[in-house]
Amino acid sequence: MTRFMDVHHGMQGITADQLREGHEAAVAIEKEAGVHFEHAWADPESGTVYCLSEGPSAEAVHRAHEHAGATRPDEIHAVPLAV
Amino acid sequence: MTRFMDVHHGMQGITADQLREGHEAAVAIEKEAGVHFEHAWADPESGTVYCLSEGPSAEAVHRAHEHAGATRPDEIHAVPLAV
Repeated sequence: MTRFMDVHHGMQGITADQLREGHEAAVAIEKEAGVHFEHAWADPESGTVYCLSEGPSAEAVHRAHEHAGATRPDEIHAVPLAV
Repeated sequence: MTRFMDVHHGMQGITADQLREGHEAAVAIEKEAGVHFEHAWADPESGTVYCLSEGPSAEAVHRAHEHAGATRPDEIHAVPLAV
């Protein structure tokens, strides 16, 4: 399993409830998707959302977003190093 | 205090030791800088580093990077929403 950071742009005006609902929808399907969603952070002003997850591949993280009804991340990077 | 996510590009080849040393240097000056560095994640392949911090302003986070001898982040966004 690899840790991934993905970034969504264009999410201007996202609310705390929307972020929480999106995260809960992702967590609800994480077992079948094989991807664990750890955290997400959002800036409603610039419309940027960062998601931190663990999964077998970037493609699996993309598929998990899709299954959860989320928008497709604009960027995704494996982040094998962390402090 | 606001939470911030900043992003560094061009860090290809960064090692676990370099990430840890950079984070420790930032933590060492966080009291005087008034910025708390929570976590950092790195992708040595694309050269992307994400830093999560808490501080009074984006400018304070920039100054804290500078004090710690780190490169200036290419992007920084307040992330008031988190799950």
